[in-house]
Amino acid sequence: MKRALGVCYYPEHWPEEMWARDAAEMVSVGLSWVRIGEFAWSRLEPDPGQFDFDWLDRAIETLGGAGLRVILGTPSATPPRWMLDRFPDMLAVDATGHPRTFGSRRHYCHSHDGYRDAAAAMAARLAERYGKNPHVAAWQIDNEYGCHDTVLSYSAAAKDAFRNWLAQKYQSPDALNRAWGNVFWSMEYSDFNDIDLPNLTVTQPNPSHELAFRRFASDQVVQWNAAQAAALRKHTDKPLIHNYMGRVLEFDHFAVARDLDIASWDSYPIGFLSDRLEASPEYKARYLRQGDPDMQAFHHDLYRAMNAGRWWVMEQQPGPVNWAPYNPAPLPGMVRLWTWEAFAHGAEIVSYFRWRQAPFAQEQMHAGLKRPDDAPAPGTAEAAAVAAELRDMPDVGIAAAPVALIFDYPSSWAWNVLPQGADFDYFRLIFDAYRALRRRGLSVDILPAETSDLSAYKLVLAPGLGTLPDPLRAAIGQTTCLLGPRANLITDELSIPMPMGPNLPGLKTTVSCVESLPPGTARPVTGGGAVLHWHETLEGDAETALEMADGAPLMVGKDGLHYLAGWPDAALWDRVIDLLGLDLTLEDLPDGLRLRDTATHRFAFNYSPDTVTWNGTSIAAADVVWWPL
Amino acid sequence: MKRALGVCYYPEHWPEEMWARDAAEMVSVGLSWVRIGEFAWSRLEPDPGQFDFDWLDRAIETLGGAGLRVILGTPSATPPRWMLDRFPDMLAVDATGHPRTFGSRRHYCHSHDGYRDAAAAMAARLAERYGKNPHVAAWQIDNEYGCHDTVLSYSAAAKDAFRNWLAQKYQSPDALNRAWGNVFWSMEYSDFNDIDLPNLTVTQPNPSHELAFRRFASDQVVQWNAAQAAALRKHTDKPLIHNYMGRVLEFDHFAVARDLDIASWDSYPIGFLSDRLEASPEYKARYLRQGDPDMQAFHHDLYRAMNAGRWWVMEQQPGPVNWAPYNPAPLPGMVRLWTWEAFAHGAEIVSYFRWRQAPFAQEQMHAGLKRPDDAPAPGTAEAAAVAAELRDMPDVGIAAAPVALIFDYPSSWAWNVLPQGADFDYFRLIFDAYRALRRRGLSVDILPAETSDLSAYKLVLAPGLGTLPDPLRAAIGQTTCLLGPRANLITDELSIPMPMGPNLPGLKTTVSCVESLPPGTARPVTGGGAVLHWHETLEGDAETALEMADGAPLMVGKDGLHYLAGWPDAALWDRVIDLLGLDLTLEDLPDGLRLRDTATHRFAFNYSPDTVTWNGTSIAAADVVWWPL
Amino acid sequence: MKRALGVCYYPEHWPEEMWARDAAEMVSVGLSWVRIGEFAWSRLEPDPGQFDFDWLDRAIETLGGAGLRVILGTPSATPPRWMLDRFPDMLAVDATGHPRTFGSRRHYCHSHDGYRDAAAAMAARLAERYGKNPHVAAWQIDNEYGCHDTVLSYSAAAKDAFRNWLAQKYQSPDALNRAWGNVFWSMEYSDFNDIDLPNLTVTQPNPSHELAFRRFASDQVVQWNAAQAAALRKHTDKPLIHNYMGRVLEFDHFAVARDLDIASWDSYPIGFLSDRLEASPEYKARYLRQGDPDMQAFHHDLYRAMNAGRWWVMEQQPGPVNWAPYNPAPLPGMVRLWTWEAFAHGAEIVSYFRWRQAPFAQEQMHAGLKRPDDAPAPGTAEAAAVAAELRDMPDVGIAAAPVALIFDYPSSWAWNVLPQGADFDYFRLIFDAYRALRRRGLSVDILPAETSDLSAYKLVLAPGLGTLPDPLRAAIGQTTCLLGPRANLITDELSIPMPMGPNLPGLKTTVSCVESLPPGTARPVTGGGAVLHWHETLEGDAETALEMADGAPLMVGKDGLHYLAGWPDAALWDRVIDLLGLDLTLEDLPDGLRLRDTATHRFAFNYSPDTVTWNGTSIAAADVVWWPL
Ligand SMILES: [Zn+2]
Ligand SMILES: [Zn+2]
Ligand SMILES: [Zn+2]
Repeated sequence: MKRALGVCYYPEHWPEEMWARDAAEMVSVGLSWVRIGEFAWSRLEPDPGQFDFDWLDRAIETLGGAGLRVILGTPSATPPRWMLDRFPDMLAVDATGHPRTFGSRRHYCHSHDGYRDAAAAMAARLAERYGKNPHVAAWQIDNEYGCHDTVLSYSAAAKDAFRNWLAQKYQSPDALNRAWGNVFWSMEYSDFNDIDLPNLTVTQPNPSHELAFRRFASDQVVQWNAAQAAALRKHTDKPLIHNYMGRVLEFDHFAVARDLDIASWDSYPIGFLSDRLEASPEYKARYLRQGDPDMQAFHHDLYRAMNAGRWWVMEQQPGPVNWAPYNPAPLPGMVRLWTWEAFAHGAEIVSYFRWRQAPFAQEQMHAGLKRPDDAPAPGTAEAAAVAAELRDMPDVGIAAAPVALIFDYPSSWAWNVLPQGADFDYFRLIFDAYRALRRRGLSVDILPAETSDLSAYKLVLAPGLGTLPDPLRAAIGQTTCLLGPRANLITDELSIPMPMGPNLPGLKTTVSCVESLPPGTARPVTGGGAVLHWHETLEGDAETALEMADGAPLMVGKDGLHYLAGWPDAALWDRVIDLLGLDLTLEDLPDGLRLRDTATHRFAFNYSPDTVTWNGTSIAAADVVWWPL
Repeated sequence: MKRALGVCYYPEHWPEEMWARDAAEMVSVGLSWVRIGEFAWSRLEPDPGQFDFDWLDRAIETLGGAGLRVILGTPSATPPRWMLDRFPDMLAVDATGHPRTFGSRRHYCHSHDGYRDAAAAMAARLAERYGKNPHVAAWQIDNEYGCHDTVLSYSAAAKDAFRNWLAQKYQSPDALNRAWGNVFWSMEYSDFNDIDLPNLTVTQPNPSHELAFRRFASDQVVQWNAAQAAALRKHTDKPLIHNYMGRVLEFDHFAVARDLDIASWDSYPIGFLSDRLEASPEYKARYLRQGDPDMQAFHHDLYRAMNAGRWWVMEQQPGPVNWAPYNPAPLPGMVRLWTWEAFAHGAEIVSYFRWRQAPFAQEQMHAGLKRPDDAPAPGTAEAAAVAAELRDMPDVGIAAAPVALIFDYPSSWAWNVLPQGADFDYFRLIFDAYRALRRRGLSVDILPAETSDLSAYKLVLAPGLGTLPDPLRAAIGQTTCLLGPRANLITDELSIPMPMGPNLPGLKTTVSCVESLPPGTARPVTGGGAVLHWHETLEGDAETALEMADGAPLMVGKDGLHYLAGWPDAALWDRVIDLLGLDLTLEDLPDGLRLRDTATHRFAFNYSPDTVTWNGTSIAAADVVWWPL
Repeated sequence: MKRALGVCYYPEHWPEEMWARDAAEMVSVGLSWVRIGEFAWSRLEPDPGQFDFDWLDRAIETLGGAGLRVILGTPSATPPRWMLDRFPDMLAVDATGHPRTFGSRRHYCHSHDGYRDAAAAMAARLAERYGKNPHVAAWQIDNEYGCHDTVLSYSAAAKDAFRNWLAQKYQSPDALNRAWGNVFWSMEYSDFNDIDLPNLTVTQPNPSHELAFRRFASDQVVQWNAAQAAALRKHTDKPLIHNYMGRVLEFDHFAVARDLDIASWDSYPIGFLSDRLEASPEYKARYLRQGDPDMQAFHHDLYRAMNAGRWWVMEQQPGPVNWAPYNPAPLPGMVRLWTWEAFAHGAEIVSYFRWRQAPFAQEQMHAGLKRPDDAPAPGTAEAAAVAAELRDMPDVGIAAAPVALIFDYPSSWAWNVLPQGADFDYFRLIFDAYRALRRRGLSVDILPAETSDLSAYKLVLAPGLGTLPDPLRAAIGQTTCLLGPRANLITDELSIPMPMGPNLPGLKTTVSCVESLPPGTARPVTGGGAVLHWHETLEGDAETALEMADGAPLMVGKDGLHYLAGWPDAALWDRVIDLLGLDLTLEDLPDGLRLRDTATHRFAFNYSPDTVTWNGTSIAAADVVWWPL
């Protein structure tokens, strides 16, 4: 499929006389898609029941007439002020019991039926009007679920919904008490209506209680999204999309994706480096203007797994953003690099956020392709360069990767609820593994835990997978698999299973003890590398593949299946990959260089601030090069 | 008295068919005591007024029949969910005004009369049934007062009770205004009912107001405990015990102890090192798997002072815990070491927490002597080793220590309310002094400020003692005493006394100025060592024993009585002890080694991760050795 | 004008028999002013409507009779407890919605009309009684506006007042929507009563909304102060004063000053170093007992700008304070140094806080000139020394400084609301510039942004000035001016202006991009120095005066007007001053030495802990020397 570029645009922010010129200029830059409408509710329905679609009709006509394909957003992330008069209890409530009020965005609780229905009704109304419009080529539902910590709400609506959810799931308080082990500390319930949300407790609530709430909260997002999807599908057959974020883990994206056609995400490499990655100040300084070399690729690979390979970048950072602790400008070339990286990972569309920097309100310091005074910002030329390169490029087909990594949202919730060590974080563990694979030049597929076929891969990793589902367990024999650390050690209810884990087929090993470790207490491994953060004691007669300096087994197994009993540092990850990746071509890449193979090409992306040489080619900082395969 | 081992057990967590086997195995390991019942209210009274004691009858019979002596807990730390229907206002409220809700434990306010009476009634009911039961050899009231910051509550019940407490104490608002100096900032009251709890004020409330609240809150715990003690004593003459925690200072344990027969505490060496000690990361890394070498001993010595020497370890960490920021496993040998250390300090019983790791709920990651799958965890063998050693050992009698340290809960409250420097903490100061004594090989007795006889000691230290009580003042002449820093500088109401302190008999010195010091500004002392955190200026013609590098007096006095005008670093503590401990045998111990003399033996405990040599003996890491005296 | 010394005194804290002796001793020390009464409401009106002025009559008579001139405070910062019965809703509310309750001071919301009127009525009553009293020579209104974060209140009273304020300012919701850009995220309002205070929003509220709230909150303080000023002026023609604090920026002091006659402030050099300055621990250790060498001078110069040069130090730290994280004692000599420094900067009066240390309540650890036991504290001798020196000194006249620095409270609010980088703080930027000038030996005048005449200065700096007012813009040509970084880049409503800034007359430069930088990522400048925290990209053909190592323009302009596109480190500031200060005499001062020129003398203040030599003179630590000019 031919890749294409797009941009996010807010006609309601600009005088109507600018629209046609903007549209023409978008086309001349080489953009062919435009997303609009997702925050415009107050202009579409200024007063309750008083609709004004005329301006949107004209905006779509102007953009579409210029040759652009429109992605139309449903505006439910920004209910107008009057909606609160209708539903005073629609606001989310934070964990300390304070309402999260009007004045920015995402001011709603996913459990409020009234607002959910009102949002779906608005979606239906839009689809009725634009569902068959020839210029409207796709739909975005809502905007960035979970952004600003908006999945977990402690409102009265959430409490009621949680009780119903529990009653549905457990059928009787006794069943729930048994499932959660509520005999502990006399936490037993005799009525579902006695069960509160797990906030404000004296000390940690029952982890099973918390995990149930996390599952419930994720389900509420799924249901919320499904309501709009159903409303839209009645009137349109264009693809439905949501734009996810980076490192938002509070809802199961795989589950939301089931009601959608295409996954998309909002890629802000420099913002994410600043505000949501564990790294030393020196590391962050090195990648200050480029972003982390693996963060974008990780999410590309993750979201590619959602809808059978169909995915977009809905928002691509084109310059400095406004919301991170520090907001430097991208190194010249990075906007082009990020764009090509997305295509190399299979994106159909990369859409920049936003066309023109708005001179007002919360995002006035967020760069666009154009400056507030309409002069071109540096991103424009880089977007245009990609557009030209795309014209000359054969299509970028996705190739299956040789390696797969299992990613599982419920595992993230489980370890968040019961970390057992201040530094144990599921994303961090997975991302360390992903980074280790990528440093060796590997392309990676990310798979959900529901996977049942691993036969396409030469190596599959599943660190931190809380509970191993039966189909995946059955598939383990198909290839070389590495589970652990902390894999298959809990039940679905977040308790300890019998027999104790990892309980893997043919692998006689039991985790008899787990330890969390503070910084500065890494444990050496015989032959090099060390264990950080987390270490397990293994028992049983499984064959030892790696051992600790004190002789204890660290990695056990042979042939197909191995279990790893600690969190590796970078050197140890390298050794693990060397041991398990005998069938793989492993590279030794310069610092900051990353590869990605498509069906036809090998791409190299230089995230480092310096020129590097690889494969006989000198690659400048922020440059991307490719070779036919 | 013959020392013995015990364990905490939860029959309600396990199928009844396991009980007998568990009991037999406990006996075979060498345990002779078992604590049960303290969290079982929801099983003893599943619905209000519907009691079910049958299972407890059987559990006691099974355990007792196997030869175990039962400690029965009153279950008031975990009121069942239905209790909240009865007393919706029984919850504690935090300092920001939020209720601390159901869902874990200790969800009650000590000032709520209704729940206090309900808890006492439950205790009475248990005592009626089991008070004369031959297997029930002791009682535990409630569980870990103060754990999870549960002493200070800002509920309506607490406010009412506080007003009554104030009215009782001061009799008239005018007396209170004068005692607190409320003329300052127009804080005067004309009615006790106008006085709020000291939270949510614009800036710091009157320290006298805060200290009164701290005293009140401590009294509420005392009264709470006394209610159950009275209820129990009506029906039993077995000893009454409470299990205190480590470094919980919000209530006066000496006062609670007056209603009890035996003190006990819950000793979690590795958890405490991780979550409640000031130390560098390097120090914590060194003692990661052993715990701090002085923390356990300190609490042993502290709690030994509560009930005429009768004290137990009710809960002993047997492996990794679940609640500290980092939870490594004990170094092999440490469970034995901790147990012997308790006995060397005079414990009658050391009881491990818990028998079998529960596979569910909050503490599912807390190790027991046995694993969740019933296999023995490493702690079992160490407990059995101690049991065997105990059998071969003559009884471990307590000897009076040559040195005493005064410990005073109200001083801790006073300095917490009015620290005058971010790093001034009473426990930290006391613990520094204790550590300094122990590094020199000394055994230490801890005494309350109410002490009136010091004649048994060669040296008595009272750093940070806010107000010197008259009986202690009278006893000062009996031996060598060191007061200060910050000793006898305040009145009972937390104001500055006239004449200004320390105002000691025969010692002409006045603290004319105090200073708090940030890290990195240590002040050198002539001859070595430095003053940290806190420094006082002395005036008067007392003889100077130590002086600052600038010539100012630091330690003054002679013969019996000295005053120390700064917070010493380790080197300075050594010099102070050298100067004052002329009659003492001072050792120079290897790093991490500690001694303790009983009536018959000298024990040495190696907390360091390395083998050390002392007294001609090589002592392995985590080993304990003893010699007859 | 002859400079004089004073002291703060609380007759209500001491037995009446001490008053006369205290007064006599004040005079003998050389004090001639005494401030009283500002916290005494509960003694002036013990019960509602029951007044007791007799004691105050006697106190004034005693003090005045001894020869002291009295500054009488209105007691509105400490409403008595009964005021809350009258106005239960008078309390301020914090940003999380919690009331800020009785029990300390400043427990009122500036928007509460009822309490504002009650406070004004009390002021009127005092003025009626003492307005013509010959001993009462000046009035202080309230105390330390903004102390303890008391400008921003989220009470119901504030919400109502804010809505009215908005309606007055914008006249229609549509106008407000347009001014704020509320079309963004559908934040449009149709009724002023729908607009909430900008707290508890899901993510950042509209910066224009926040800035409006900040302006409103400042106006409320102005109005509050004006109410008492008006009440007092009806009955007295003595000067009206308020005592401001250090680095309190939440209200516009220039606006408050318009209703007053003399500015004053409370100078706590050591407390401020500890609790409100960005500096390394090493720097803070160096100045631990002296305070920052520029902090006092900065505020002297700032407050001198408020009332045509008339300003006082109302409270001068005389020893250790009680409220900073660390509270060391001043180096001997510093009390004298601070006092002389104030005089050198033009203070009419320096008044120490307080006469005698109170032995009770919140400030019992705050030193006075006298100890609680009435012995003299070290400050007394230093005050007496200054008094003696003053007698021998010709009057200290203020000379105009050669350099001016623009200081603008609304700019501080704007950048606080929209920092765009975690380390961007207006005061910090201004203070860096001020420090850079002072390191070169320059005396500095601080000017408000409303300034329209710069002709007296050889150099004027305006870093961080959000919006350049027209009169100042017109004055720019009068001398050498440096704007930037971040100057004239926003509109009054906190949006981006068209054309984009800095848009300066005759300077063809536009900021096309801004970047915020984390620590450790300083950007080098050709020729030396570096840019920290903040960096702008300039576009246009203005002449380059300084450039980045990568060739980008950093400072542009020539002759009169320059723009600086980055936040300089100390070395770069030096270069900027060298480049622009050709007409100035620039010194190279020893570390910690500062100069100040009066009309007749050059003063040198040694803040360093070591003796320094300058101008051929050896100056001891904490010493001050002067030479006739
Ligand atoms: Zn709250
Ligand atoms: Zn416990
Ligand atoms: Zn003050």
